[in-house]
This record gives sequence, structure tokens and C-alpha cells, in this order.
Amino acid sequence: MKRERKLLLWIWWLVIVTGLFLLGFIIGWFAKFTPVKNGNDKDANQRYLRAFLDEMKAEEIKKHLRKFTRLPHLAGTEQNLRYAEQIMAEWQQFGLDSVDLVPYDVLLSYPNKSQPNYVSIVDRLGNESFKSSLAEPIPEGYEDVSDIVPPFNAFSAKGQPEGDLVYVNYGRTEDFMQLEREMHINVTGKIVIVRYGKIFRGNKVKNAELAGAVGIIMFSDPFDYSAAGVESYPKGWNLPGEGVQRGNVLNLNGAGDPLTPGYPAKEYTYRLSREHGVGLPKIPVHPIGAYDAVDLLKNMGGPIPPNNWKGNLNVPYRIGPGFQDVVSKDQKVRMNIHTNNQVTRIYNVIGRIRGALEPDRYVILGGHRDAWVFGGIDPMSGAAVVHETVRSAGRMLRKGWRPRRTMVFASWDAEEFGLLGSTEWAEDNAKLLQERAVAYINADSAIEGMYTLRVDCTPSLHTLVYDLTKQIDSPEKGEEGVSLYESWHKRDNWTNDRDAPRISKLGSGSDFEAYFIRLGIAAGRARYTKNKKVERYSSYPVYHSVYETFEIVEKFYDPSFRRLRAVAQVRGGLVFQLAASQLLPLDASQYADSLRKYAQSIAQLAQRNPDQMEMYGVSFDSLFSAVQNFTDAARGFHERLQNINTADSLQIRMMNDQLMYLERAFIDPLGLPGRPFYRHVIFAPSSHNKYAGESFPGIYDALFDIENSADPEKAWEEVKRQISIAAFTVHAAAMTLKPPA
Amino acid sequence: MKRERKLLLWIWWLVIVTGLFLLGFIIGWFAKFTPVKNGNDKDANQRYLRAFLDEMKAEEIKKHLRKFTRLPHLAGTEQNLRYAEQIMAEWQQFGLDSVDLVPYDVLLSYPNKSQPNYVSIVDRLGNESFKSSLAEPIPEGYEDVSDIVPPFNAFSAKGQPEGDLVYVNYGRTEDFMQLEREMHINVTGKIVIVRYGKIFRGNKVKNAELAGAVGIIMFSDPFDYSAAGVESYPKGWNLPGEGVQRGNVLNLNGAGDPLTPGYPAKEYTYRLSREHGVGLPKIPVHPIGAYDAVDLLKNMGGPIPPNNWKGNLNVPYRIGPGFQDVVSKDQKVRMNIHTNNQVTRIYNVIGRIRGALEPDRYVILGGHRDAWVFGGIDPMSGAAVVHETVRSAGRMLRKGWRPRRTMVFASWDAEEFGLLGSTEWAEDNAKLLQERAVAYINADSAIEGMYTLRVDCTPSLHTLVYDLTKQIDSPEKGEEGVSLYESWHKRDNWTNDRDAPRISKLGSGSDFEAYFIRLGIAAGRARYTKNKKVERYSSYPVYHSVYETFEIVEKFYDPSFRRLRAVAQVRGGLVFQLAASQLLPLDASQYADSLRKYAQSIAQLAQRNPDQMEMYGVSFDSLFSAVQNFTDAARGFHERLQNINTADSLQIRMMNDQLMYLERAFIDPLGLPGRPFYRHVIFAPSSHNKYAGESFPGIYDALFDIENSADPEKAWEEVKRQISIAAFTVHAAAMTLKPPA
Repeated sequence: MKRERKLLLWIWWLVIVTGLFLLGFIIGWFAKFTPVKNGNDKDANQRYLRAFLDEMKAEEIKKHLRKFTRLPHLAGTEQNLRYAEQIMAEWQQFGLDSVDLVPYDVLLSYPNKSQPNYVSIVDRLGNESFKSSLAEPIPEGYEDVSDIVPPFNAFSAKGQPEGDLVYVNYGRTEDFMQLEREMHINVTGKIVIVRYGKIFRGNKVKNAELAGAVGIIMFSDPFDYSAAGVESYPKGWNLPGEGVQRGNVLNLNGAGDPLTPGYPAKEYTYRLSREHGVGLPKIPVHPIGAYDAVDLLKNMGGPIPPNNWKGNLNVPYRIGPGFQDVVSKDQKVRMNIHTNNQVTRIYNVIGRIRGALEPDRYVILGGHRDAWVFGGIDPMSGAAVVHETVRSAGRMLRKGWRPRRTMVFASWDAEEFGLLGSTEWAEDNAKLLQERAVAYINADSAIEGMYTLRVDCTPSLHTLVYDLTKQIDSPEKGEEGVSLYESWHKRDNWTNDRDAPRISKLGSGSDFEAYFIRLGIAAGRARYTKNKKVERYSSYPVYHSVYETFEIVEKFYDPSFRRLRAVAQVRGGLVFQLAASQLLPLDASQYADSLRKYAQSIAQLAQRNPDQMEMYGVSFDSLFSAVQNFTDAARGFHERLQNINTADSLQIRMMNDQLMYLERAFIDPLGLPGRPFYRHVIFAPSSHNKYAGESFPGIYDALFDIENSADPEKAWEEVKRQISIAAFTVHAAAMTLKPPA
Repeated sequence: MKRERKLLLWIWWLVIVTGLFLLGFIIGWFAKFTPVKNGNDKDANQRYLRAFLDEMKAEEIKKHLRKFTRLPHLAGTEQNLRYAEQIMAEWQQFGLDSVDLVPYDVLLSYPNKSQPNYVSIVDRLGNESFKSSLAEPIPEGYEDVSDIVPPFNAFSAKGQPEGDLVYVNYGRTEDFMQLEREMHINVTGKIVIVRYGKIFRGNKVKNAELAGAVGIIMFSDPFDYSAAGVESYPKGWNLPGEGVQRGNVLNLNGAGDPLTPGYPAKEYTYRLSREHGVGLPKIPVHPIGAYDAVDLLKNMGGPIPPNNWKGNLNVPYRIGPGFQDVVSKDQKVRMNIHTNNQVTRIYNVIGRIRGALEPDRYVILGGHRDAWVFGGIDPMSGAAVVHETVRSAGRMLRKGWRPRRTMVFASWDAEEFGLLGSTEWAEDNAKLLQERAVAYINADSAIEGMYTLRVDCTPSLHTLVYDLTKQIDSPEKGEEGVSLYESWHKRDNWTNDRDAPRISKLGSGSDFEAYFIRLGIAAGRARYTKNKKVERYSSYPVYHSVYETFEIVEKFYDPSFRRLRAVAQVRGGLVFQLAASQLLPLDASQYADSLRKYAQSIAQLAQRNPDQMEMYGVSFDSLFSAVQNFTDAARGFHERLQNINTADSLQIRMMNDQLMYLERAFIDPLGLPGRPFYRHVIFAPSSHNKYAGESFPGIYDALFDIENSADPEKAWEEVKRQISIAAFTVHAAAMTLKPPA
């Protein structure tokens, strides 16, 4: 009995000992993972996101916008440096881990203060019977402001060419083709006059140069810069007749500073001579307003153009060349351009929040600070949004939050002079960005209309954009309780393709260019926009004029500042989720779907010439087969993603690397033909319009040339070569999604 | 008393419970790390390395070499596919996780079987008084072998040019300069004859073409292809007088397949037309042996050349043009070249061992399989070594070992036709390699002499090479117990610079090219070599002749096969350590030291023209300042590396990524001037000799042009531009080593 009890006691002991040990073991095992789990916790992340979005205040955005639009702050001026320093100081106060002022010395362009630029009508004796205005009337409240740069086209060649005017509509490739082939008018030695709109102004200048013009004048036609039923500023938000659109006329194709293509414009950097600078126009260029345009156009001779060449000015839009004999015999037009190019120091502000777990992964929110004048919309509506994002992120840091990855905030300089600040910084940091950048979110003008959200982004961000906008409130009156997603979906459905809000392709014309098209970093932009179905004007009427003030936003575009807040929540929410999520919120399957659509659409475009396609043996089979391969790889990837061990930090990192490098896979190091800095095989601007993002741009441009080529066989050979490159690139991208070994 | 006992019992209980729980907890805590620890264990890794090195057997290497040298296996032939299939089958048996045959369709070049190539002397009537031999005498034991390709220069243009001969020494840029400027002899319309050696033969052909020659003949002079006191094969290892060096004469500059530059030569790939193919010579080219050279040279007229133009043939080495009037009036030389270029399928064999922890990190051991004839030395001495490495790795896998990272083994095809197999695969996998490749170790000929080890590699591998060779035995007789390091150090000390065995820069001419110079993957090669101080002949005498047999290795170069075993241990040990070590064995500080030396030496080269440097304002300050920045960053990096938590797999991965991407940081996506596929700013072949690896090749080439340029200001501007690019690149590389945020 005693032995039995002893035995029983021993068994008890054993059980307890084992049990306790096991308990300890189990607890020890799991306790170990606490730090990692913290990073994983989806619920916590969701709560942090909510807090971050709620932290953003309309009132604060208004304050930021007011603060940074009181004075003109053109790139390269003292005032723009002052604002940079102020932004730096405030970002530091907000709590960023580091903020730096990063200078570059780039080629900028300014009017000569003692010799103003203008356009005149002169007679044989050189008497000027007409002179275009030298400045816009200054808006109320800003009368005492100095340093308002008069309207000019940056980087115009100097000179005083004289000649007959020829009107060439929007100055597009097709306009010049029509002029030459159908109207049989040659512009060699002439001064061309075109209306602003439809395409990037630099493309118009290039076209005029190629056609042999000795100068080009661009005007704002009310057809393209007035909304119906809206008054001119300050009573409404239309462009006054004296208003003029400034803007650079470079053809950089992504080169950045014209004198240091491919390398950052540092002190020690070798600079090309001015005559070898990239993209500088060789002829004088000047912008004028609608009123001045009437004076130039009203007496023109030559044929009456087709209706789609006519704008809304009270003139017949005759094509020329020159004036009508009866009225203005012997009169010529003269351009008087004295603009100087000069190497000037610019400043980016770069702020950082160091990532807690993966400091070597970067999520970038960048937008420019330099403005043509006050920058009420462009860019400060965007810069105010970035400022509010930084402020909110700083508040979150103080609450103990820290993102998994590093967040980078950028206030770029000299965007208006060819995306110079952002491109130089991209060149300076190219190696780091190529290896470490997860995504770039752009923050130019946050508002260009009062209708709904507009998003342009890479396909892999579509899902995140939809998820996020479902968590943001609509800013529209009467839509309380409605999500931004619903509000947007209701106003701009994708139609045909899918039942979801429309998301567009990225083109160019803002600072994401070097990040997306040169380096292949997933990118997107978001802003509030107009109703494109009924509002047909270009961008927004006062674009790049002196009338882009704080007041135009406060009075007309967003009196409650709730639209800007919604844009801040979208832009900020995107960088938040990209930086904080354990698994990167990038969707390869959406890319697959988009590639299929793009392939179909480019094949259809080619099919306009079915006979030639057959004659020259052009086939899209290899491209479709590559897209299928990519689709399978994307599906397989996301299936594996479902089943990974989220406690295994190496496995997470490897899958995330595949997602991060997906966009990079579409980069061709050889670049697109003749455009070494446009290297994205899926997305790039058309060679004929920098603003238009084309899919499969290499094939697109080659097909565009089919129409114009004297040697169709050679042109179709180029199409075939481009299809082959596209197919290879899509196959290569598919490989990056497959299991690595 | 009872209560006290009870209390005591309770206390006992509590202590035991707590203790047991704690014990369990601690064990649980640490047990959790076992899998990671396993990967970390330096001792275990060291034991595995030892076992792996010991597994390699001289006898096995001999068997492999015997097996793969019985039949000629030129690229694109049936027999080379047979060997590929055999290698694939054996690698599978050895235990690799996967082995694939990867085909490409590239431009190859073969003599016309029905119209042999030869060089003749003809009189006015077209009678041939001399014809060069059509083949080399077949070595003993191989008499029944068919398909021995006769000596030819692959990718020669077709044609039958006739003209006077001009002898131009080695055909180097400086030889042609001397000919034109000092001897005032113009080769326009002439046939040039040059001796093999000093520089890559393709450069000779390019020089002849640029000088206006209509054809070029290359011969093997005993001065350059015979060792003193050595008999000709088969009695010794010298080149017989009938022996001829085959070889391609392309100027690809890293393009790979001439018809698909930049893209893999797949079925769907667009191909350039033949006339637009990259690097194809435009004139006929043909190689001859020493005996035939005597017949061509002996009666030449013209001046007697300087002594350094004279070889060891019993002829006066007169320069021409043409023959001596007295002897051979009216006689001309005619080349009869009927070689065809044709797109042909080639096959790489790619084998893999999947990495246990980081399958997405690749360490590559690659070497070619295709041979001009038997390939006794080139390449099968190297291929046998790779085969033995794979066999040993397979044995280790069976013992339970698995490397941390993925190992890739490659048997490349068509190296002899311009590094085609390796370059096409690099193009095919460029995205994956750029993002994931840790290092590439090359495995061409493993032996070219009987003296000591030769290593060419990137500076970051220096430390690993030294560490490893200290663990390998010297293969030399009488050096039992001496390490390979000591044996090597004794024979080839670095002198001046440092007391260690000499390691050289990588040039080109073998399959590492695309990996190192285009993609920026850390690379190295190792082989057994001659004593360069006394053995002055080029490469090894029988190079690319029919006399490269198994027997020449077995009888002369390495009868015990211990030298090949030592080379196998070096090559295999490198990939083993790179794949298995937890922290990558790459040394950024060594790179810093090398950069400093290179900067000093290129600045010295420029200082040959101190006056011009001052006149044009040329300074190397920016480069030295960049090197200092890099040096500081490298030191800081390795200090941080000392202090990392090796249990934190994310931290390890981040530091390793910095090491892996260091080499990538030296790549300029714009390429070197005119050479888009040579993109390494620190190392590339000179434009004047593909074999010579130059440091700062952009600056080097620009300085080379100073001498020849008609416009010195422009030439110095290019030097300044190249210094700026080099400084920027070194700064950018420094950035990659700094803390990431």
C-alpha cells in the first residue's frame, strides 16, 4: 500500500513536472514571437490607419494653403528657398526623424527684366501697330506683391524673328500633317500660331520646329480655357481675356536638367555646353492671352479652316499665311524674346520616418513646391495636402506608431522647368531607389474640378485604391455616410470593362515621371477633378496664370476644404498602407488583367491595316502568349501568398520583394527608341504628346509612324521589333513572379 | 510542526513549479530558434566546407575530362548537344534539384565544307604558286575522328580579296599608328598580315578594317606560341609549325548574339538583318600556322622593321607592301574565304540546388562546354572541374547539407562564338539576376601553365579568396602540408602594394562578361597558370588548335590531376561559401582600397600631359573625394556588421542585401561611350583590347584618345566628363553602404 502510494505520488509528480515543463515550453515558444506579431497585427494596423485618416483636418489644410500662397515662389528665387526652409522647420516640428535640404544646380530660364518679351505687328518701316501685353492685371489683394514673373515660355530661344503668321490649330502632329498634305501650306520661315490645349506645349514647339517655322505663339482660346456659364476670375473661376498660361517648352523626354542628362546636377558634375543641352527649343516661343490673340488673328488671310480648327474667339480663324492683303498689306508679325537660360540652385526638401522593421524599404510621397506665381492650385493645393499628411504622421509617431518601412516625404523644386528637382534626386539616388523603393505617390495639384475623384496609377495599385477609398468619406454635400468610393463610382464608372470607378493610366507632366517611367517604381496620383463628360476645357481655366490664388480655391473649388481633405486621405492612406502593411498591398493579378486589355487594344490599332499586317507578317501572337504566361504566374503567386507563414519574416520579405520588383521588371535598360530615359515598356507618354500615357508605347509610336513613313516595310519592321520587345518584357516580368528556385 | 512542514512542502512545491516552468520556458524560447541557428552555425558550416573540399577527387576529374574530350564538340553541332544531354543526365544523378536544357537560336559561323578557306600567292594569270594548308595534321589516336573543323576565323566576311601584303606586327592600335605616322605606309586596298598575341584578335581585325585593309591574315609566331626548351606536341606541349589558332573575330562589346543585341535569341525574338548585326567584320579574315607564315613573309619587300616587330621565324619581317620585286614581281596574295554565318540552335545546361533559407539568392558557377575541337584544355579542363563540383555538392546534399542560398550551375554553349550562350541566358534572366544574384564564378580552362594559381576577381572577393586558399592544399610535389595560399604567395607576391598573393582585375574574353560588366554581379575566376615573369608566350602554345587533347593535360600539364583538383577546390569553395555563409563573405573595404589605387593610377596616366591638364582645367579631385567617401562608408558598414544580432534574420538579410548590391552600384545604365552593354564604371576591357581589364575604363579610353585626337580640347572635355561620371558612380556606391534610413 505504502509502495503503491509512493508510486502514485511519483506518477503524480511526473505528470505535474511534465505538464509544467510543457506549459512553460509552450508559453516560451509563443512569447518569443511577440515582437514579430506586433508588426503583423492586421487589426492594430487597421486602427492606426483609421486614426491617421481621422487626424487629417480640412481646417489645417486651409491654413497650410494660405501660408504658402501669399507670395510668388518661382523655382530658383529667394522666396522659394524661404518656403523650403519653412517646410523643413515645420516637418521637423511635426516629428519626422530627419529633414534635409537637398540642392542641385540646374538650367533654369527667366525673362530679361530690362527687355520684356512681347509679340508685335510691324509694318515695313518697323513701326509697331500692335504690341501684346507685358503682364496680366494683378488680382485684388496682391497689388503690392513684386516678383510676379510675366507670362513667358521657359527655355524659349532668344531672338526677334519676323514673318507671316500661320494658324495650325493645336499644333499637333496631325494638325501639321493636315496643313501640309490637305491644305498644302508650308510653314518654312513663317511664325506659327497655335492654341493651347490637347497636347503638351513642348510637343507643339517641336512640331513647329520640325516643320521649319521660325517662331511659335501659343494662345488660350476660350473654347479650351472657359467653362460654360462661369464668370472670369475674380467673379468666377474662368480665365480672364488677359490671362496667360505660362509653361516650359522643353522636350526632355525624362532627362531632367538639360545639361546633365542621366546624372545629378551637383557641383562637380560635368555640364554639356548650351548647344548640346537636351530638349532646348531652337526657335522663339511666346504665350499670349485671348484678347491679344484676337488682335493677331482677326485680320489673317488665307483659307477658312475646317470647323474643328475653330475656337470660340470672335475671329474667322483663317489659316494664313499672313494678313489679308486689303487690310494689312505689308504687315508682319515679330516676336521679341529675350529670355535667358541660366544655371541656378534649386532645393528639394526631403523628410523621413525610419521604418521599424524594414528601414531599407522606401515609400515616397512627393510633390513640387515651386509655382509660376502664387501656385494657389498648382502646386500648393497638393503641397498643403502633403503637409497635412506629414503632420498627421508625426502625430501618429507621438502616439507610439511607427511604420514597418521607411516613409520619404519630398517637396520638389523646379517641377515647372521640366520636373528638374524630382528627376535630379532620382538620378542622385537611382541605385537606392531601384533596389529599395516600394512605391511613389505623386502630389501635384490636388484639385482641378469640383466633381469627383480622379486616380491615375499602375495596375498593381488598383485594389489598394479601391480598398482605401471605401474607408474614406465622400466630401460632397448631401453625401454624409457615403464613402468616397461610392461617390466616385456613381460619378465615373469604368463602363464596359468593369463595374468600378474608373482608374486611368499614368502619362507624364509631373514629378512621378522619373520614378515610374525611368526607374520602374509602382506609382500613382490622385486629385479631385471635373466632370469630363460635360466639361470639355483643358486642365482648369486659370492654369499657370496669375489668377491661381488661395482665393480661387477658397471661394470656388473647395470652400469647406473637404475635397482637399479627401485627397489628402487618399494620398496619405496610400503611403500609409504601403509603408505599414506586413504584406505589400500590390496586386499582380490586376496587372495581368490590364496587360490583356492593353494587348487587345494595341492589336486592334494595328488591325487598321490588315493587308499590310499580312504582307509584312506582323503578328501579336507572341505578345498574347506572354500575357497568358504573366496571368498564370500572377495567379500562382497570389495563391502562394495565401498560404505563407506570416510569422516567417524571411518568407514575408521574399514575397514582398517579388511584389516590389514587379514594376521594375517592365523596365528596358535600353529605353524606348530615341528616348533613353523613358524605359517603361508598358507605360510611357506618346512621342506626340507628353501628357498622354500610352500602353505599349514602343508599339504605339511605331504604329503611329506607319501613316507617315516613306518606307512602309521599314516601319512595319519596327512594329515587329517592338512587339518582340514587349513580349520579352512581359515574359521576363512573369518570371519574377514565379517561385524563385 | 505539522503546519511548518506543510508550509515547507508548499514552498518546495512553489520553487519546483516555478523552476520547472522557467526551465520549460527557457528551453521553449531557445528551441524555437533551432532552425535559424542551424543556418548560423559557423562551426557546422566550416565542417561542411571541409567535407565538400575533401569530397573532390583528382581521379574523378580525370575521368570527367577523359569522357568529354573524345570527340570534337563545336557549338551548334550534334556532338555538343550529346554532351549537353550527358551532363544533364549526370547532374541529375548527382542529385541536383533541377537540371534544364535551355536553347537559344544564335548566329554561328562555319567554313563551307565544299569550298575550303585558304590563302594563296597568285601571279598575273591567276596561277597559285602557294596555297596555305587546309587542315592541321591530326594528332595520334584521333585519326578516325571526323568533324574536326579546319582552322578558320568565325564570322569572317566572305570574299576573295587580292592585293599586296603589309606586315603590321600585332595589329594593335599603336602598331597601325606607327605604320602610318612613322613608316608612312598606307594599307588601303592591301591585305594585312599580323601575328597573333598581345590583344584580342577581334581588335586586330577592327583596326585593319578602320585602316582600309581589304583582308587580314593572322599567324602564330613561335615568339608568341612556343616555350623555350619545350618540344612540339605530341613530344612536348609547344604548338607545331602546322598548328593554327582558331577563333572568332567579332567586336561585340558584350552584345551577345549579333542579331538580337539586348534580348535573348528566342524563337519569337526579332532579328536584325545580317548587315545590321553587331560586331561582324566587313573583310575576310584567316588564320595560318608558322610554316605557312614563312612562305608568305619570306619574300616580302619594303623596309626592315624595328626589333620589337620581329618574331622568331626565319624571315626578315619586312613590312611590304608586297613582295620583293626581284623575286616575286607581279605576285599578289589572295584570300579565299567561303565561311557562312547561320542562325543555329545552341544549348545551355542549367542545374540548381534550391537554397534552404533564401532560395531567391543565387550563386552561380558557370563555364562553357563548346570547344573548337576536342577542348582538352579550353574549356573541358574547366568543365571537368565544374562537373566534380556538382558531384561533390550532390554528395553533400545526400549527407543532409543544404546551402542557405540557391546554387546555379551552368554549362554554357557557344562561348567560342562570342560568349553567346552565357550572354543570352543573362539577357533572358536579367531581371532575376539583377535583383537576386550574389556572385558569379567563372569556369573556363582550369589550367594554362604548371606554375601556380591565378585569380582574377572583383575586389570584394579578395578576402574570401585568401581565406579559402589557406584551407586548400598545394598541389605541387614536395609541398605536402603547405597550403595553396602559401605556395601561391611564394611564387607570385603582389610586391610593392601588399604582401599577399597577386590577384588581378577581370578583363573579358570569357563567360563572366555579361554577369560582371553588364549586370554588375560580383565575379571571379581562378585557374592554374604559368610563370609570367619568365614565360612570355601568349596564353598557352596549343591554344585553340587541334592539339588541345586530353593527353596534353595528362602527359604535361597535370599528370596527377592535383592541380585541377586545387582549381576545383578554389572554384567550388568560392561558390560554397557564398551560398552557405549566413553573412555574405564580401568585403567592401577591399573595394575601397582598390578604388584608391585605381584612382591614383589613372590620375598618374593623365599626368603625362600636365600642361594640357592645366590648360583645360582637368582635375581628379572629385574622384578622390568620392573614393574617400566610399572608404568611410565601407569602414562604417563593416563596423556595423560586427555588431548585428545574428539571430535577427531581417537584419541579416538587409546587411547582406547591401553587400550583394554593392557591385551593382557601379553599373551605369547608360553604358560606356559607344558600348551600351559594357556598363561597369570601374572595370571593363579597354576599347583597344578586349582581353585587358582596365580600371575606370571610361577615363582610360578618353585618355587613350588624347594622343590621336585632332581636337584636343574636345578630347579633354571627354576626359572631364568621364571623371565626373566616375566620381558620381563611386559616391552612389558609397550611399548603398550607409545605413538605409
